[in-house]
Amino acid sequence: MNIGVLGGGQLGRMLALAGYPLGHGFVFLDRAPEALEGLGSRIIGALDDPGALEELAARVDLVTYEFENVPVEAARALARRVPVYPGPDALEVSQDRLREKTLFRQLGIATAPFAAVDSRPGLERALDEIGLPAVLKIRRLGYDGKGQAVLRERHDADAAWTALGPSPCILEGFVGFTRELSCLGVRGRDGAMAFYPLVENRHEGGILRRSLAPASGAPDADATALVRRLAEHLDYVGVLALELFEAGATLLANEMAPRVHNSGHWTMEGAETGQFENHVRAVTGAPLGSTAAIGWSGMLNLIGAWPEPAAILAVPGAHLHLYGKAPRPGRKVGHVTVRSDDATVVADRLDAIELLIRGAA
Amino acid sequence: MNIGVLGGGQLGRMLALAGYPLGHGFVFLDRAPEALEGLGSRIIGALDDPGALEELAARVDLVTYEFENVPVEAARALARRVPVYPGPDALEVSQDRLREKTLFRQLGIATAPFAAVDSRPGLERALDEIGLPAVLKIRRLGYDGKGQAVLRERHDADAAWTALGPSPCILEGFVGFTRELSCLGVRGRDGAMAFYPLVENRHEGGILRRSLAPASGAPDADATALVRRLAEHLDYVGVLALELFEAGATLLANEMAPRVHNSGHWTMEGAETGQFENHVRAVTGAPLGSTAAIGWSGMLNLIGAWPEPAAILAVPGAHLHLYGKAPRPGRKVGHVTVRSDDATVVADRLDAIELLIRGAA
Repeated sequence: MNIGVLGGGQLGRMLALAGYPLGHGFVFLDRAPEALEGLGSRIIGALDDPGALEELAARVDLVTYEFENVPVEAARALARRVPVYPGPDALEVSQDRLREKTLFRQLGIATAPFAAVDSRPGLERALDEIGLPAVLKIRRLGYDGKGQAVLRERHDADAAWTALGPSPCILEGFVGFTRELSCLGVRGRDGAMAFYPLVENRHEGGILRRSLAPASGAPDADATALVRRLAEHLDYVGVLALELFEAGATLLANEMAPRVHNSGHWTMEGAETGQFENHVRAVTGAPLGSTAAIGWSGMLNLIGAWPEPAAILAVPGAHLHLYGKAPRPGRKVGHVTVRSDDATVVADRLDAIELLIRGAA
Repeated sequence: MNIGVLGGGQLGRMLALAGYPLGHGFVFLDRAPEALEGLGSRIIGALDDPGALEELAARVDLVTYEFENVPVEAARALARRVPVYPGPDALEVSQDRLREKTLFRQLGIATAPFAAVDSRPGLERALDEIGLPAVLKIRRLGYDGKGQAVLRERHDADAAWTALGPSPCILEGFVGFTRELSCLGVRGRDGAMAFYPLVENRHEGGILRRSLAPASGAPDADATALVRRLAEHLDYVGVLALELFEAGATLLANEMAPRVHNSGHWTMEGAETGQFENHVRAVTGAPLGSTAAIGWSGMLNLIGAWPEPAAILAVPGAHLHLYGKAPRPGRKVGHVTVRSDDATVVADRLDAIELLIRGAA
């Protein structure tokens, strides 16, 4: 099949690398598809350019996307022409933190306390309700820690509102948690689902740095039940990621991503079927592949820059994934995975690679 | 780096898919690079077209090849401009069955008895020397069982010579063997070597059908010693494959391939580092990746046609690799791999897939 992809970043690149062996072709729509040099066919244009969308629809059998800030109207317009997976509803929910959290609550998925904030007085009311510390986030278009302000004391409210208002915001209470987890599920066109083992993630400055999988002693059954509920409610097709905080016996949903997810990159070498292949299988209506882990895996993001590739590849078992993007501070430019049948070997090798990464930063 | 590849078939396709994550770009030279739709940059031209070679040399940092019938003079011409790995000497030896077997003998690598045949009377002399049954092969350009004639009785000689002469030939004696094995090694620019576990192969009609790895109870140490001897003699860089017959305690070398090899396709999912990635690592001067097997693997070729992809993907653990080539009898159009920690699971799943393949043929 010819698969249209909205967005031309690293997730699109890795979708194509996983999809070619299954016999598919790829057409990407992006204003500047930098991560795709030499891969697939490209339509250069904005994601809401009617002519570009028209051309894409004419050239493909179905459309998917590799990031969630695709204009919903563009996805809906495409969906009138060709199948779009996941459907525009999932996209719409995930683009708005308030709608997303409200859906979680509606589905009985626990979250940190939250309240809508549409004005400076509204922020005061929300602070009365949620308490401190709290974090004010713009409802739309935030990512990797951008569009957020932490409020530790009441007088932080002015600066936070100045920085983020008058965008519609959401105020979220801080929750004490033991660790950050993520759960990736994949749902086929026929409704069949499969789940990867839970992943333990470490963020710094709002950006994912390190993942370990399978997360040891993790509540897989609880988490997969939440992802299943979400996916079934949205009649979802493709890989769906849910970021979670583990707080004692409770799992609090932080956010969902209607796409392949950075915390699932370990699956490329560490699971029987990688998340990119499984997303392609799902959207094309093929049977899903096994999501079982093969031993233990770890993943480190390369952010802003990368060490000498030879230095990384000299670490036994290291797999390097560069995205073909120019280095720039704060930008995800690649990742490294490590897999072993021994969890301590994975940890040691990740530490060795992390030293190289910090040396290059 | 920009890597130039002579040839645009499935091996080139899989080199690119493995090389992009390492940050490399690819430029292919081929008259009809059918397996590369959507991948890499392509120069359309004959492999001995001086203008095309000139353009390739100007655009890349090094050149490798994905099949061994590249004109040696083209490789030598390129080598005066950019590094060519493996070197043209390896190419030259592997293109001529007589030179190849003679090199094996010179290096103390056992082979079936053989003799040069340049004329009809020469065939008689060779038959006197080698005996019957025997197989007459053209020295150059044979592949997948083409350019061969089996002689079971003396009077088969006329038909064999009519079919293959006046091309220079080699007559090889039949050897009784228990199984067909192959040994894949990879040698870096610095001379470091790594070896995949031995593979057990089954051919039909001269075409590889099925591989199993690691081959159980196989003489890995003996075989890797032979590949090492060959690679060091040729100052080889890249993946080198040696096809072997196991005859009791003796390993007889059948032929070498100076490239990634069909019998190594299982390594894509079944080894820590796939053969394509390791070839790219080797030719770019990066450290080699681990060649250790992850459990047990099997590979089936898709020849001439392929079953419904969904049927293959419904077999647990099946990984499909289609080459983007039009179906045509006798043509390798894809392969399927299976991996498991349990060898009997691999065998059962291969049997299930083989049924699908035979149904589609």
